Amino acid sequence: MLKNGVLDPQGKAIEGALGTLGFPNVASVRQGKFFEVELDEKDAAIARATIDDISKKLLANTVIENYTIEIDEK
Amino acid sequence: MLKNGVLDPQGKAIEGALGTLGFPNVASVRQGKFFEVELDEKDAAIARATIDDISKKLLANTVIENYTIEIDEK
Repeated sequence: MLKNGVLDPQGKAIEGALGTLGFPNVASVRQGKFFEVELDEKDAAIARATIDDISKKLLANTVIENYTIEIDEK
Repeated sequence: MLKNGVLDPQGKAIEGALGTLGFPNVASVRQGKFFEVELDEKDAAIARATIDDISKKLLANTVIENYTIEIDEK
């Protein structure tokens, strides 16, 4: 997700389109990416640390983006 | 999120990159989009129906994509 204050032209375009499509009560739209990563790891704490590492190294551009992590056990 | 069975080349590329970056226990990666829509609507059921409508009309390509909706009240 882009940090607050970073312009999100795609979100703004969707916001404009929704106005003309007849959704007047849409106050704002911001677009982000998400990744579903399947990990062979039984320890939830290690899984979270691994995903955090992956996010910082590859998935997120931390200069302009925030990220959050959710762990689902199977 | 792309439906199961629909090829996700971006997810596959990330999966390959993570292998070479030293994350051998990553079993699979799939990439999707998400949208944060701020809605002026007090009734959670109406809000959900509106977002469902918006998803079908504009945000999701339901031929190849699934979507889920989460409502956060403020």
